[in-house]
Amino acid sequence: MVPWLCVKPAITIEDVQRAATRIADHVQKTPLLEPDDLQSPGAPRLWLKAECLQRGGAFKVRGAFNAVLAGLERGDRRDLLAVSSGNHAQAVALAARETGLKATIIMPEDSAPLKRAATARYGAEVIYRGITGLTREATARRLADERGLRLIHPFNDPEVMAGQGTLALELLDQVEALGGPPTAVLTPVGGGGLISGVAVVVKARWPTVRVIGVEPALADDAARSLAAGHIVALTETPNTIADGVRTLQIGEHTWSVIQPLVDEILTVSEEEILLATWQLWTRARLLAEPTGALPVAAMLTPRLAQHWTRDPTGKVVCVVSGGNADPVALAAGFGDARARDLAW
Amino acid sequence: MVPWLCVKPAITIEDVQRAATRIADHVQKTPLLEPDDLQSPGAPRLWLKAECLQRGGAFKVRGAFNAVLAGLERGDRRDLLAVSSGNHAQAVALAARETGLKATIIMPEDSAPLKRAATARYGAEVIYRGITGLTREATARRLADERGLRLIHPFNDPEVMAGQGTLALELLDQVEALGGPPTAVLTPVGGGGLISGVAVVVKARWPTVRVIGVEPALADDAARSLAAGHIVALTETPNTIADGVRTLQIGEHTWSVIQPLVDEILTVSEEEILLATWQLWTRARLLAEPTGALPVAAMLTPRLAQHWTRDPTGKVVCVVSGGNADPVALAAGFGDARARDLAW
Repeated sequence: MVPWLCVKPAITIEDVQRAATRIADHVQKTPLLEPDDLQSPGAPRLWLKAECLQRGGAFKVRGAFNAVLAGLERGDRRDLLAVSSGNHAQAVALAARETGLKATIIMPEDSAPLKRAATARYGAEVIYRGITGLTREATARRLADERGLRLIHPFNDPEVMAGQGTLALELLDQVEALGGPPTAVLTPVGGGGLISGVAVVVKARWPTVRVIGVEPALADDAARSLAAGHIVALTETPNTIADGVRTLQIGEHTWSVIQPLVDEILTVSEEEILLATWQLWTRARLLAEPTGALPVAAMLTPRLAQHWTRDPTGKVVCVVSGGNADPVALAAGFGDARARDLAW
Repeated sequence: MVPWLCVKPAITIEDVQRAATRIADHVQKTPLLEPDDLQSPGAPRLWLKAECLQRGGAFKVRGAFNAVLAGLERGDRRDLLAVSSGNHAQAVALAARETGLKATIIMPEDSAPLKRAATARYGAEVIYRGITGLTREATARRLADERGLRLIHPFNDPEVMAGQGTLALELLDQVEALGGPPTAVLTPVGGGGLISGVAVVVKARWPTVRVIGVEPALADDAARSLAAGHIVALTETPNTIADGVRTLQIGEHTWSVIQPLVDEILTVSEEEILLATWQLWTRARLLAEPTGALPVAAMLTPRLAQHWTRDPTGKVVCVVSGGNADPVALAAGFGDARARDLAW
């Protein structure tokens, strides 16, 4: 047995409440949807918190705005730097534009053209030529030093985590429509920024509501960390279609919340992720990205059905975390999912 | 000059208000969204009424439920029949299931497998083998007689029209978020059920707000009808990608509203429809079907920019009428749209 110390969680619900006030004018309240065509008999009602309809197409703007605005409150007017191949890049670019700062974003050369285009559209300088997964951290450190930039971490930052938690505060308000608290709230897990913010809020208000993380089986470091009682890192970047959760490990700050407050981490296969993405597109008419479909994959796969049928009269909220997908790139992979879904 | 008579509009706002009460428990209030990434400098703010998030994936359930429930109020307990290759089929199937009636739906053999699957999932009997565009009306009449079924017309029925108008009543409530009435409301036009319901409400409350229909240039019968002052029919089914508006002509009931109340009909090319669909998917993260993208196509195409820049401080509401598209089938057509959108 490796002994472990109980560390103080990096954030509290009060941090999230302050974040909500701070970012209110910059983020959208996203709808909570109950799509008919995704309900299954004998399973709990499925509700979607549609963060794919958030500004920038993902929950990431919540954390980015909170970090940037909190910095400005402290008098930190440095321009911004982020290392991200995806939604965090767009979020930091948007936060910079609206606060009068400049954003420099380092993306790997093989990042999705659609995400690069969106980031540039928000006015950021995108550096990607010659950048690989191995060189981008060094490039970031060099640029931060040379240009005096503030690096906004995508998850392992208490201000970012508190910002992400604001979606759960919205959920508290919206959940009256469900006739009482849900039995569980499911979110994707990558570095843990989203689930830590959500867990802090949900457990403060509804201690018995289960907070469940979902990750690809190919990137199961969070599940292994929770089982081991300490952070377990992957040794190489996982090749999952859920490109928002290709992180190697949870952060120390996010772990300080995840370890005591997250009830469970479920893992899903690539096939299950693609089918859930297809079903979100064609049955909920939301253009979720595969990462955003992780919770729905866990709810809808027959493999985990017993997990939910224990409580068939309950309600489960799945956070659809983002919607920045390239439909043309994904369509090729939908062949099997489409065929299985049409077999009637 | 062909003389024409002013006929009494087939419905009034009071019909729509009664419909709203009748169908309240069966339809969802759909969100009004203001997607950042679809706004253009110098153009009015673009708002989306996201009917693609409606039950059954389109506004059609509003009209179907109103017709079926109004029938039941009159004591008409006949089972239901609909002729439709698309969203009306799903809507009637859903309305039947929830009112304890049986639905028979006649679809052409070449209808989209995804729409047949969805209709069958709602419990309807789907008849499609051997059915063509030419034989389906005759098959419908025969079945209605033989089985004593009630035919629910997809648009030319005052109860259906009043039901569709309920989305505009929602809009009246939601529009406070816009800080006052919009300058225009845009909807697709096929048979005219949607635009007639919307026009009756909008013009009753906001007489100066423009109600504008949008149709494919390949199916410009409504534009030609408005110009001619009488219903002009197409001679053959238009081969537009906007498969929800392949109707040959407006109905007499819908015309009775469209002729006096609709300000203008704009037409868009197939290329413009595909680009708008792509932009709704990737910038608003809504899986709109091409028909649902018609209003956005009119707003975003540079060809019609002068139409909007007259009033750059205004707000325009585009009704995204439906989201029943097959992503795999559409992806092939997105090549050009994607390339143009990525050229940065």
